[in-house]
Amino acid sequence: MKSMYEPGTQALMEAVAQEASQLKGSDRRDFLKKGLAVAAGVTAGAAAPALAKGNPADMAPNLPSWTKQLGRGVVARPYGRPSDFTDLQRRTVPWLTASPESSISFSPLQDLKGIITPSGLHFERYHGGIPEIPPESFQLMVHGLVERPLIFSLEDLQRMPSVTEIRFIECPANGGMEWKGAQMEALQFTHGMISCSEWTGVRLSTLLDYVGVKPEGKWILAEGSDAAGMSRSIPIEKALDDALICYAQNGEPLRPEQGFPVRLMNPGWEGNTSVKWLRRLEVGDKPWYHREETSKYTDLMPDGRSRKFTFVQEANSVVTNPCPENPIRQKGFIEIEGLAWSGRGSIKAVDLSFDGGVTWRKAELKGLVLPKALTRFSYKTQWNGEPWMIQSRAMDDTGYVQPTLAQLREERGTNSIYHKNSIHTWNVHANGEVHNVQIT
Amino acid sequence: MKSMYEPGTQALMEAVAQEASQLKGSDRRDFLKKGLAVAAGVTAGAAAPALAKGNPADMAPNLPSWTKQLGRGVVARPYGRPSDFTDLQRRTVPWLTASPESSISFSPLQDLKGIITPSGLHFERYHGGIPEIPPESFQLMVHGLVERPLIFSLEDLQRMPSVTEIRFIECPANGGMEWKGAQMEALQFTHGMISCSEWTGVRLSTLLDYVGVKPEGKWILAEGSDAAGMSRSIPIEKALDDALICYAQNGEPLRPEQGFPVRLMNPGWEGNTSVKWLRRLEVGDKPWYHREETSKYTDLMPDGRSRKFTFVQEANSVVTNPCPENPIRQKGFIEIEGLAWSGRGSIKAVDLSFDGGVTWRKAELKGLVLPKALTRFSYKTQWNGEPWMIQSRAMDDTGYVQPTLAQLREERGTNSIYHKNSIHTWNVHANGEVHNVQIT
Repeated sequence: MKSMYEPGTQALMEAVAQEASQLKGSDRRDFLKKGLAVAAGVTAGAAAPALAKGNPADMAPNLPSWTKQLGRGVVARPYGRPSDFTDLQRRTVPWLTASPESSISFSPLQDLKGIITPSGLHFERYHGGIPEIPPESFQLMVHGLVERPLIFSLEDLQRMPSVTEIRFIECPANGGMEWKGAQMEALQFTHGMISCSEWTGVRLSTLLDYVGVKPEGKWILAEGSDAAGMSRSIPIEKALDDALICYAQNGEPLRPEQGFPVRLMNPGWEGNTSVKWLRRLEVGDKPWYHREETSKYTDLMPDGRSRKFTFVQEANSVVTNPCPENPIRQKGFIEIEGLAWSGRGSIKAVDLSFDGGVTWRKAELKGLVLPKALTRFSYKTQWNGEPWMIQSRAMDDTGYVQPTLAQLREERGTNSIYHKNSIHTWNVHANGEVHNVQIT
Repeated sequence: MKSMYEPGTQALMEAVAQEASQLKGSDRRDFLKKGLAVAAGVTAGAAAPALAKGNPADMAPNLPSWTKQLGRGVVARPYGRPSDFTDLQRRTVPWLTASPESSISFSPLQDLKGIITPSGLHFERYHGGIPEIPPESFQLMVHGLVERPLIFSLEDLQRMPSVTEIRFIECPANGGMEWKGAQMEALQFTHGMISCSEWTGVRLSTLLDYVGVKPEGKWILAEGSDAAGMSRSIPIEKALDDALICYAQNGEPLRPEQGFPVRLMNPGWEGNTSVKWLRRLEVGDKPWYHREETSKYTDLMPDGRSRKFTFVQEANSVVTNPCPENPIRQKGFIEIEGLAWSGRGSIKAVDLSFDGGVTWRKAELKGLVLPKALTRFSYKTQWNGEPWMIQSRAMDDTGYVQPTLAQLREERGTNSIYHKNSIHTWNVHANGEVHNVQIT
């Protein structure tokens, strides 16, 4: 039979299948067991797909218990949950923060497929815990240097023209533990402060048209109603570009962890600028220099000065298969996968290296390639037990290329914990284990 | 200030804002209250965005209780849940099926934004309840007219090259209650047997290349391991086209309701062909004519004969705002929204009528337009209390145009319960209520 799927994907497997089809009986079975294992790589040892024994009637005595009795009915689960057989968890690093109310949890990137992060697995960052806000009590005040200060209810916002976009949110501290050389042995902790959702809301520019920004209005303070009163200063240019006042995520109302009922969303920018549990937007003529944009969320440079307002999350990428949580279990075929993203726009290309950056080859961009969204990449190859130093290097459509760790440290030293977007290295050992190493 | 957002979107609101900006003090406030309410329509009566009183300091005494105390910390919710203030439910129609194990629940389309259905709200259809399948016990047998019958474990499947696509699944009985004239007073029940997710798995063609389909192999029986042993015959052409063996939905492992650990997915085809809790695939030279493709899931025609193997879900659409669950609460601006889809490919255009199909205007396709996926459409207008008979009419990229109910009944009579994709009508009353009416 002629293969109908993408040419090249499975060339080797096809060759094996064709060769096998010319053998008979036990010869064929032996060849398949060995051939598929070594050459095509889908099968090996105990985990090989067994050859089915005879005809389907042979399976009848082996009908599983769940086929012989009725399952759970439809009424028990009005809102669904993952299978009890799965272990999907946002995890925390206990020593990272002082209290659970000002803490962070990480998306399990190693367990995820595609580009959508289920809302139940979106990474979390709070500065004063999750407030519980009755939606009918929600008010958003827009005031300051405006013609008509207004307070909007949730219903007001939901009646206005809406926009839906798939965009990532990333904490600027993602990977920050690695600046000075800490080596977390888990993808979830090296890169899990990023998630990607379908967001729906009103353009902030629409609200600003209602209130009428005065000519001297150049900055906007966004303030949350959480116990931290989390606040950031946003330039008017971003507010008039693609900033969203969001009330829905992945189709349904925002989750409490993501700012229910309403958050700001600044696509491609530092996550904490996308202020959650939004309470007010004040238009002013200069930034406010509040706590979370001075003593925090600034980049301490080698000379002791701080870079401020480094809003954009630059291009970054990481290999998600293999990774410490997903070691290589069998020799042979493997689809290397990973995620790339850029706060400036769309991912243009991703290169892969297996020798720590000496030589590079082009990965395939897989599925949807959207601006300021996670983009999945893929590279199909063979692993035969040789040690690998796997790296991925993302380039975005502005031409920006993800830097090496050495390049990043040369420019910014090791004082910062923010905006570490350097090329990441996984070391694959001969036994298939994967470890986090730093190539400087 | 010059409006930076999409021209035309808010022309009327801008006019109001500009006019208001030339007034002073209480005149301006009065105008805004009245003008925005009547003309721009975002505000009216009690629900009007109130003018903020004075400067931000005035808000301080009114700080809400949740700002004055720490919220819940990060550790309590390893896998997230919707806010307790929301009421997101898949709902059932009690009289529709005899038992909860062979039943159906409907996606709350009226509550959803964008095109992604959260996995926890995907419609459900079982014929024998939800089986609980330990993933390590999962086996998929591929046998029959093949060179090399094989049994695949979940790990085998997950090591093979994967594909991720956003696609809808629709039960062919969606809307079926309306064939004979039942008029469900809820969008959730007229159209809620459709959902749309990001699916990840292996192309079925890849598996078939492994086992080697013999030249006489023309059909494939897909059988589930649920207590119903749900099974359907699939033509080899679909198997070699875009059929997927799925193990992930919206980034994470399949939910139990959707076939955990593995289901078949036939994009654009009758939902029940996408057999869940998949157990075996048998290749044969003709269809099997099992129960769910003969006595069920065939279309009884006026002459007493049945159309069989009507696999494709033809182009369809429905307005989701307004709808019976989302009445119009205020006069003035309204963004009409809805969903369109086609099992043949991409949505090319959606027309809207406000007078029951006499005159039509073009709706805007909003956000991502993907093949065999939900596509959202939008039309921004004013409602001033006049009665509306709203209809939407979808056209796909094959040129197929959604038929009227009269056209559909002329061809297929009223015996069937499947494949009712006719143009739907919502009647908006002067008080803003929305009712389901049938225009024949």
